[in-house]
Amino acid sequence: MDGIHLLGEWYGCPAETPEFTSAAALRTLCLAATRAAGLTVVGDAFHQFEPQGVTGTVLLAESHLAIHTWPEFGFVTVDVYVCNLATDNSEKAEHLFRALETALKPRRKRFQVIHRGGKDE
Amino acid sequence: MDGIHLLGEWYGCPAETPEFTSAAALRTLCLAATRAAGLTVVGDAFHQFEPQGVTGTVLLAESHLAIHTWPEFGFVTVDVYVCNLATDNSEKAEHLFRALETALKPRRKRFQVIHRGGKDE
Repeated sequence: MDGIHLLGEWYGCPAETPEFTSAAALRTLCLAATRAAGLTVVGDAFHQFEPQGVTGTVLLAESHLAIHTWPEFGFVTVDVYVCNLATDNSEKAEHLFRALETALKPRRKRFQVIHRGGKDE
Repeated sequence: MDGIHLLGEWYGCPAETPEFTSAAALRTLCLAATRAAGLTVVGDAFHQFEPQGVTGTVLLAESHLAIHTWPEFGFVTVDVYVCNLATDNSEKAEHLFRALETALKPRRKRFQVIHRGGKDE
């Protein structure tokens, strides 16, 4: 089951972005961005930490999105993992990843791509 | 925000394991294994695909667990990602990962560890 997993670490995200601090706002963003990318939502869970921070995942027919924010550090981690069962979903995964990045506006970032699954040797 | 992310690809998982094919059984396993590892559940979402396959995530106070099963290929992918905000949770993450592996009994596997976050340069 060939797949691609995009991992981001975003630093210096502006504190005033509602999606950075509010679970409800981040959920709305994630669901909208997932659908806009052409990926299929099959479930989700988001949690608001007190005094701050959000953690959330969107279950996809193609695998998952996971996102965690630490407003006290201006820091976010993002995972977009899609499998390529019927079709190559890599471009949709990139689209989703970039939409979240655009919304959360990191000043500095790290990015890794991992190819997963593949041939069973 | 230093963290550790364990990624597994498991091949040759026996089809008769209930947790491999049933969302309810896999959810029960994941929640129990998370708590047994000393990690804190703050939410979860699991989805049953038809005719087969399960996808699920457990939101942790420490980040997340994500798991996807493809019974038609005997294949599972697992992610356990924990941040080390107040304490080093790496050992708990390993404990959770191994508990799931023990339950799903892969005959062959791939394993990667990624260190995430770290110093903002």
